[in-house]
Amino acid sequence: MKTCEPFLPAVLLLAALLSPASGQMDLPDPSDATAECLICHEMATPGIVADWQRSRHSRMTPEEAMEVEGLARRMSAIQVPAHLADTTVGCYECHGLRTEEHGDTFEHFGYQINLVVSPADCATCHPDEQDEYMDSKKAHAVANLRDNPVYHLLETEVIGLKSERDGALVSAPPSAHTQGESCYSCHGTVVEAKGLKTVETDMGDVEVPDLTNWPNQGVGRVNPDGSLGACTACHPRHSFSIEVARKPYTCAQCHIEPDVPAWDVWKESKHGNIVLSEATHYNWDAVPWKVGADFKAPSCVVCHAALLTTPDGSEVLAERTHDFGSRLWLRIFGLPTSHPQPEHGLTTTLRNADGQPLPVTFAGVPAAEGLINEEEMAARQATMSGVCGACHSTDWVNGHFAQFDAFVAEVDQMVLETTGLLSQAWEAGLADPANPFDEYLEQLWVYQWLINANAARYASAMNGQDFAAFKYGWWGMSQNLVKMHAALKEH
Amino acid sequence: MKTCEPFLPAVLLLAALLSPASGQMDLPDPSDATAECLICHEMATPGIVADWQRSRHSRMTPEEAMEVEGLARRMSAIQVPAHLADTTVGCYECHGLRTEEHGDTFEHFGYQINLVVSPADCATCHPDEQDEYMDSKKAHAVANLRDNPVYHLLETEVIGLKSERDGALVSAPPSAHTQGESCYSCHGTVVEAKGLKTVETDMGDVEVPDLTNWPNQGVGRVNPDGSLGACTACHPRHSFSIEVARKPYTCAQCHIEPDVPAWDVWKESKHGNIVLSEATHYNWDAVPWKVGADFKAPSCVVCHAALLTTPDGSEVLAERTHDFGSRLWLRIFGLPTSHPQPEHGLTTTLRNADGQPLPVTFAGVPAAEGLINEEEMAARQATMSGVCGACHSTDWVNGHFAQFDAFVAEVDQMVLETTGLLSQAWEAGLADPANPFDEYLEQLWVYQWLINANAARYASAMNGQDFAAFKYGWWGMSQNLVKMHAALKEH
Amino acid sequence: MKTCEPFLPAVLLLAALLSPASGQMDLPDPSDATAECLICHEMATPGIVADWQRSRHSRMTPEEAMEVEGLARRMSAIQVPAHLADTTVGCYECHGLRTEEHGDTFEHFGYQINLVVSPADCATCHPDEQDEYMDSKKAHAVANLRDNPVYHLLETEVIGLKSERDGALVSAPPSAHTQGESCYSCHGTVVEAKGLKTVETDMGDVEVPDLTNWPNQGVGRVNPDGSLGACTACHPRHSFSIEVARKPYTCAQCHIEPDVPAWDVWKESKHGNIVLSEATHYNWDAVPWKVGADFKAPSCVVCHAALLTTPDGSEVLAERTHDFGSRLWLRIFGLPTSHPQPEHGLTTTLRNADGQPLPVTFAGVPAAEGLINEEEMAARQATMSGVCGACHSTDWVNGHFAQFDAFVAEVDQMVLETTGLLSQAWEAGLADPANPFDEYLEQLWVYQWLINANAARYASAMNGQDFAAFKYGWWGMSQNLVKMHAALKEH
Repeated sequence: MKTCEPFLPAVLLLAALLSPASGQMDLPDPSDATAECLICHEMATPGIVADWQRSRHSRMTPEEAMEVEGLARRMSAIQVPAHLADTTVGCYECHGLRTEEHGDTFEHFGYQINLVVSPADCATCHPDEQDEYMDSKKAHAVANLRDNPVYHLLETEVIGLKSERDGALVSAPPSAHTQGESCYSCHGTVVEAKGLKTVETDMGDVEVPDLTNWPNQGVGRVNPDGSLGACTACHPRHSFSIEVARKPYTCAQCHIEPDVPAWDVWKESKHGNIVLSEATHYNWDAVPWKVGADFKAPSCVVCHAALLTTPDGSEVLAERTHDFGSRLWLRIFGLPTSHPQPEHGLTTTLRNADGQPLPVTFAGVPAAEGLINEEEMAARQATMSGVCGACHSTDWVNGHFAQFDAFVAEVDQMVLETTGLLSQAWEAGLADPANPFDEYLEQLWVYQWLINANAARYASAMNGQDFAAFKYGWWGMSQNLVKMHAALKEH
Repeated sequence: MKTCEPFLPAVLLLAALLSPASGQMDLPDPSDATAECLICHEMATPGIVADWQRSRHSRMTPEEAMEVEGLARRMSAIQVPAHLADTTVGCYECHGLRTEEHGDTFEHFGYQINLVVSPADCATCHPDEQDEYMDSKKAHAVANLRDNPVYHLLETEVIGLKSERDGALVSAPPSAHTQGESCYSCHGTVVEAKGLKTVETDMGDVEVPDLTNWPNQGVGRVNPDGSLGACTACHPRHSFSIEVARKPYTCAQCHIEPDVPAWDVWKESKHGNIVLSEATHYNWDAVPWKVGADFKAPSCVVCHAALLTTPDGSEVLAERTHDFGSRLWLRIFGLPTSHPQPEHGLTTTLRNADGQPLPVTFAGVPAAEGLINEEEMAARQATMSGVCGACHSTDWVNGHFAQFDAFVAEVDQMVLETTGLLSQAWEAGLADPANPFDEYLEQLWVYQWLINANAARYASAMNGQDFAAFKYGWWGMSQNLVKMHAALKEH
Repeated sequence: MKTCEPFLPAVLLLAALLSPASGQMDLPDPSDATAECLICHEMATPGIVADWQRSRHSRMTPEEAMEVEGLARRMSAIQVPAHLADTTVGCYECHGLRTEEHGDTFEHFGYQINLVVSPADCATCHPDEQDEYMDSKKAHAVANLRDNPVYHLLETEVIGLKSERDGALVSAPPSAHTQGESCYSCHGTVVEAKGLKTVETDMGDVEVPDLTNWPNQGVGRVNPDGSLGACTACHPRHSFSIEVARKPYTCAQCHIEPDVPAWDVWKESKHGNIVLSEATHYNWDAVPWKVGADFKAPSCVVCHAALLTTPDGSEVLAERTHDFGSRLWLRIFGLPTSHPQPEHGLTTTLRNADGQPLPVTFAGVPAAEGLINEEEMAARQATMSGVCGACHSTDWVNGHFAQFDAFVAEVDQMVLETTGLLSQAWEAGLADPANPFDEYLEQLWVYQWLINANAARYASAMNGQDFAAFKYGWWGMSQNLVKMHAALKEH
């Protein structure tokens, strides 16, 4: 291979610019219904109309998309309803779908439409993505928090309105608006239609569904059609851009320090260094995504989601998935200690040896059922190693993961030391185990795993080492242990 | 609308590059005076000469700029002094202005010039911008801090040199250099000319004004001509670029965590996600700024300053303003609780019910006078909603602000709980209310509103939710309450 | 000067794209050996092959590189071994070097090669860079930490596995894997070959050297040939890009908050604001780097490493150096107080007045020997001022450094106040000075200088002022003093 195409996006750009219609690219006609939507919405919401006009949806019909063969194909459906096949994908084509299933269907200037386009709607053309997604923890992000009594207790400690009553500090149940603006902003809210309401707008009064906990784009949003998730969480808003979803800033909305410092660690890694330095040389839009030709060091989706091939596009290095945890074997955050990934994205059904709905006990024992077995762990690690192997030798990759395993085991041990100290405190009556999250010593313990140990484990997984050393990480764990130990000794 | 101009900047670039003078664009001749400046300064400070050569100032005369009609016009003056009208805006045209008003005027190789070009100088061509700016809190950022006894007490606690004296810890008044390198770096210093001094340079000895607290580019800088502010704070340094001012990194110099996490919250919002992902597709220089055509998701100035229109430039969505708070109704930071915006940018004249020069009491009661009324609050919210409305439905926008209102009220309540605990401590003699900022329990209280509650309120305003949850925010507030409560119970 | 070349990279790009071979640039033939490597490695590790194909190494022979005259020359060798001179620099040309000196040499499909290409190998063509680097603290980053008993004690407190034994909290010596994933990830590990091992790969079993503490790219890595450092730490991985090394994200892998917040402070400075806003307009690849023509505001390497000239390339503003501390006079981090830079990068041989292997005592007294003298300090400040002077007047630069000096002296004083309180605690038996790092009060003291004071000093050096005010910085120092003082008074 002696060719070099470092600037493919620029080539395409140039072609577009030098064409006769330079700066004036014609779009195909939208459907009549969508054309009617646009008459008002070019005035009412010009920004999202322009956004859509830049999307692939405004330029291509499903029929054309289905003609694409092989790895370059972006649609997973092999057939779509006839009336949708030969028109571009505009306002009405999406907002007019499955109105019978939608609780938020309403009549809008002569059309029956839904406000909330859901993953189940998108599945009309993209069914595989929806199927994969339903297996992910993201799809179940509401239930995994709300319906887990242990997490719900922690949530109440974090975002419940606190007040002093009879000398004690008590937390009220979190309010819907505070839930929606904090935890459930990422996890997703429950969006239900409570009938209709009238909204005063610049263009007159409009009757629309009265939705609960809206707006929200959380990854596990419960939609008015009963489906789970929001594709726009990562493919925002009407351009549904694959470029945006592939840029790390998308994942960085939720996967950030102090509790889930994935973005922060990556940013400080060699991978982040290279991507942030060379992002303008990447072709962020190509399908399949060809290592070396389209991109170099990985952004988040390279390791966790994208369809990857060799530079010439001939050989698949990793299959596309929208079950973002499916290439992962060890779960390194959210619990005191690391543990095998759950078998399924819905985790409230797990039970550990202490009877808690958690994948692991506070003492570090994994649940007997519901977690993937060693064989599956090995298979997933092999898949991920295949991604690493595009640029790193097998020995390098093995060395990285061996170091990771030994490091995480030691971090887990540092957490268990604080669990031991907290148990001493509980036994000595210095804290009350009824609620393990609401007293000073307990908060130190939570900080140890939810912040300090998480930081260290992510740092090792993705080589962003200040999070292992001084940023939370090991120094955080060490200082925390000294504090807890001193507090115990004092009493 | 069926056109699509996603790459306008590239089109312009291409036009420039393919022109006969490619890579060698001729600049018009500067004035004779400026030409003489350049002879030395191309050697003495080549970087800023090159910077200026890229500016619009080096390529256009005020006369030409005044010929531009309608929304595309960048100069607000309708007339300028005749001798300035038909020459490009070079060194001497700015540094030679209003020498009689300037305390820093000096003779420099035959010319009378000023070192510090001030907003009052820039107002020669840009008077509206200066007028608007004078109403802003930014223009009064020095007095608002230095001349407010309450804030000055807090400042002394933060940056005064502390030492132990007779067993007590005391803070000396902050030194000028520490002020200039911390608080007043953003707020601005007082720059006065104390006569002349001789400076040894590579090109020989030069006599220049001896300025106090210099260099500084704070937003409220007190200039040697008595004017307030520094246009270069946001339009740095000799290119006076509108692109730089519109990029979020400019605001991010001062509006950052932990005390004012505007940038940090925005970065983690969907708006930040899109801007950071698609910044290279934006046309950052267009005037007016056309939503959908020039930009998509908003950087800071879209919501707070820029002249915005529909994609075709025909309809104004928001007027330009350099009073950056003028589209805001609720003030959500800097005080224990949220409160209506002050009527004017100079806030030292406010008096709350406790007689303090503050817009709200520690117990959360807004001042009776000097804050905008409900009608004005509604009008400002309507202006902002008009910006949101370019891309979001009215119902969406209403929902966002309803959630914000309810959320902020609850955050305020979390602050008032700590104020209650601190009052108990003061009554019990566990702390001394004479100075409310200098003891351990008082510092926890300050942290509750200045850091934790600020973070949560910003998170809700701009949807960057980790600051509502774990990054300071609610968990910070909850942990702080547990700490304060435990400390009180212990004694 | 009346030309304006703001978009030089685009010009070059355009030229390339419009050439007949657009998108298909021919590379010269590699050597026969390298061609043979590529046959397998285009399949085994296609990403790094593509990376190399974009490098200058794949397009040019050393002979051609040596023909470049003057400041544009990128190779410092004046002669290279004949067999290397007229072939491009491919796999075998680097991995086949100096096999007799390498402990990691092995036979790989008929070739004797090394796994770890070291600075001593790179010195074949780049000897000056290696010489300069050997004087830097980076080259000695392993010994400076591991072989300094004081730092090693601190390291043990930070990353040693802690456990309770007989009621006391004790730290085990740090394990190799935790060292490699935290402190020594940046500092570098000791990589030694312990013989050979067999690795299972997708292409069959392969025999490779069995390396200790691998992979690692730390700046002071001890290589199997005994040399120190890893050029790929900053010029990653097979493109050896000067663009990446010049982008601030490279330095930001290690020089970050909370302990060394160089990147964070810069990002919030006016310099960072401009670079992050205008990065796409820079020519990041030009040699020499011409201020105003190729770049404007400085990224890290402008001040600390790069060969800089005037816009027309005629006059050198600063010579290139790979001894990154050689333009610095005051050392502002890592010790309680600031002090003159060490004379040499290896610092374990220093002895202060208390007999510690440190450049300064805990009480702030600099070592009598081994630190640069005032004359050298002045000379280095003059060099740095020469860089500043490209854009700032002499008076501005002098003012900046005067403010810095006064500010840092006051910050040092804030640290010494805590040292005084800690001494009181030691005398009162409230802590044990045997290990000054392992108890609660001692950790507050370490935090005062390693985090809070570092932040403030960096903030002043590079004008990122929130780190002087609220982000660690002065408020951190003040709160810390209040905490230490209260804890002392309680007992």
